[in-house]
Amino acid sequence: MSTLNKNIGLIGFGVVGQGFYSYLEENKEEKLLPKIVIKNNNKERDEVKAKFITEADEVINDKSVETVVELISDDKEAFDIVTKALKAGKNVVSANKKMIANNLEKLLELENKSKGRFLYEGAVCGSIPIIRTLNDYYSLDTVTQIQGIFNGSTNYILTQIFKDNVSYQESLAKAQKLGFAEADPTSDVSGSDALYKLLILTTHAFGKFISPSKVLKIGIQNITDSDIAFARENNLKIKLIASVKSNNNKLWLSVLPTFITNDSVFYNVDNEFNAVEVVSESIGKQTLIGKGAGSLPTGQVIYSDYKAPENYKYKYDKILSGKRIKYETQEFIWVYSDKITQFEKYIEEVVIINKSEGYAKVSIADLIKIQEELLDEKLSLIALTDEALKQLNKKYEFAYALQYA
Amino acid sequence: MSTLNKNIGLIGFGVVGQGFYSYLEENKEEKLLPKIVIKNNNKERDEVKAKFITEADEVINDKSVETVVELISDDKEAFDIVTKALKAGKNVVSANKKMIANNLEKLLELENKSKGRFLYEGAVCGSIPIIRTLNDYYSLDTVTQIQGIFNGSTNYILTQIFKDNVSYQESLAKAQKLGFAEADPTSDVSGSDALYKLLILTTHAFGKFISPSKVLKIGIQNITDSDIAFARENNLKIKLIASVKSNNNKLWLSVLPTFITNDSVFYNVDNEFNAVEVVSESIGKQTLIGKGAGSLPTGQVIYSDYKAPENYKYKYDKILSGKRIKYETQEFIWVYSDKITQFEKYIEEVVIINKSEGYAKVSIADLIKIQEELLDEKLSLIALTDEALKQLNKKYEFAYALQYA
Repeated sequence: MSTLNKNIGLIGFGVVGQGFYSYLEENKEEKLLPKIVIKNNNKERDEVKAKFITEADEVINDKSVETVVELISDDKEAFDIVTKALKAGKNVVSANKKMIANNLEKLLELENKSKGRFLYEGAVCGSIPIIRTLNDYYSLDTVTQIQGIFNGSTNYILTQIFKDNVSYQESLAKAQKLGFAEADPTSDVSGSDALYKLLILTTHAFGKFISPSKVLKIGIQNITDSDIAFARENNLKIKLIASVKSNNNKLWLSVLPTFITNDSVFYNVDNEFNAVEVVSESIGKQTLIGKGAGSLPTGQVIYSDYKAPENYKYKYDKILSGKRIKYETQEFIWVYSDKITQFEKYIEEVVIINKSEGYAKVSIADLIKIQEELLDEKLSLIALTDEALKQLNKKYEFAYALQYA
Repeated sequence: MSTLNKNIGLIGFGVVGQGFYSYLEENKEEKLLPKIVIKNNNKERDEVKAKFITEADEVINDKSVETVVELISDDKEAFDIVTKALKAGKNVVSANKKMIANNLEKLLELENKSKGRFLYEGAVCGSIPIIRTLNDYYSLDTVTQIQGIFNGSTNYILTQIFKDNVSYQESLAKAQKLGFAEADPTSDVSGSDALYKLLILTTHAFGKFISPSKVLKIGIQNITDSDIAFARENNLKIKLIASVKSNNNKLWLSVLPTFITNDSVFYNVDNEFNAVEVVSESIGKQTLIGKGAGSLPTGQVIYSDYKAPENYKYKYDKILSGKRIKYETQEFIWVYSDKITQFEKYIEEVVIINKSEGYAKVSIADLIKIQEELLDEKLSLIALTDEALKQLNKKYEFAYALQYA
């Protein structure tokens, strides 16, 4: 194939697009990128050799273009672009986690019919090569759990809360000022962004497509000063943990602010860093930690997707294996609240620490039912890891005993 | 190519070879492995479908064999096998870190002339896909540092020392009993094994070949009870850290027992786990943690090397970039000893804590000169990370002040 047919069509030129561009420059490949599609041609932009245009179709239908790199923020437009590009037989690289999480099943059908391929390492945890690791190394292993810190903005906010002894609101404001959180931080602080990533990994690790609307998701917006004080008193940190666990062909998922003990690998994963822990039967536990966002860290995985070996595609072995796995919500977890007594009718067991403060065993299914209400009523709930539960039980065994006396 | 030409020749059937074999079974590929080369045909073995033979040449010269998987322990024999196999145009997979660290430059020449390829993910940190990560994601980035826990046996020993409050000798004995350390643990506890891995990563990250004999290497054999007591008193752990740092086209390397503060990502990397931290200009800090050894964890990366995409080879971009980088030993580090005063003539600065106990600034070059002597005289030295130095300086500032008053 002549290099004439190897051009790139870049759609979107925000932070990540510019990072991707800088790797093309570094490797003297800018000449392969004649056109960049942008929304608004009136913005001032750094000088680049490509021509700025506003019609995505112009690069999708361009016969000289082999790879379409889609890096826009609107998920519906992105889906339209990726669909058209795969239908036109292009290789497609995307980083749009919301679009992918909501449409992965359809996208794989499109890829199967296309002579192009669809890669999207940049959609999950920025610089961390977790999709390729799952694809290349776990095809014959049985994954039992994936959990981690999948959102850099919330991790930055939570880190500052514990470092600088500030409230959630103060920390959010600082993160926004420094560019670690968006002007509208909803998708991050609500846990949606982490959930999209979790669902993409769930497809790779368990061969299952699950709709975001069906999964328990509690964000960090309602974390109170007393939650923070309680964590500090007990040498715990709060992290927003996304988790998928499997057992006996059943699958449980959640995104929850969670108390972490200081012997957890996540305890020192601070600021804008992300972490992914994969537990599997043969390999055991494997953890990857790296920057979850940013122009160059994410631009680099986009670049590596563009440069992937000619016959490299994601294999989706877990879908192909045909193993039936069922999404479940009948599972209990332990959660802490300074107003735990408000959840009375959902509680299986409870340890009251002081007045309304305590921690309780509740079902995922019940929490899904009330998650919207929690948000509206500004009630906070912090989940406990097994280790955090053990640590608290040790300290509050007297309170515990009281309950069951 | 017909499947007849796609056979595997497995040489060596120890722990890792058996792990590799179990993945072939899992994927119903045992039929591709007609023969396994072993040293001693009299040992009792698990039933496998392959025929056991004792002549490596028989598989190397077999036209039906496309991939030779070399998993023997002797490094000289292994080099001979890999050389012949590459010359015969086979794809070669190896996990022999000593053989590779000592011969990588020659091996790459052989690979360049061969129609086969040479992959060896299993040689560095077991299940952690660090070579592929460096190869696939760091070609356009400037790596400035790689450090980590590269040896599972020593990490297991050190973990037990801190967990069970036992001496080095007791912990070693337990590790041997449980199979986490070899009957002859020299290569592990002396730091050699970690050093070989460090040198392989140095070639991938910096494009440099360095002989093991030239690098500062202190093992964990001489760690004293008072070193351990000092660590515990100061909330530190001791980890065997392998490190390569670059600055201004210069490169420093070391393998040293090191005091780690509890905010380090390595602090909770315990037991047989390994960790690799890569710092680079664009991506920032990235850490991979996983099992560093074991039949299935290592067998799995061997299997993935065998299954790598058809045109996948390591690129060695950093060698090809032609950037000249110089190996240096003129650099100072801080080390602790309960007999620090014995090192008087090498000391630049010192903080005396109590009698002969303290920590001092010494040069890597001087330590290389005396490393053999240290070993013979059973003297221990524990390096300090920047954070550990800061923490100790804070506590012992009065002692410090005494020195310079």
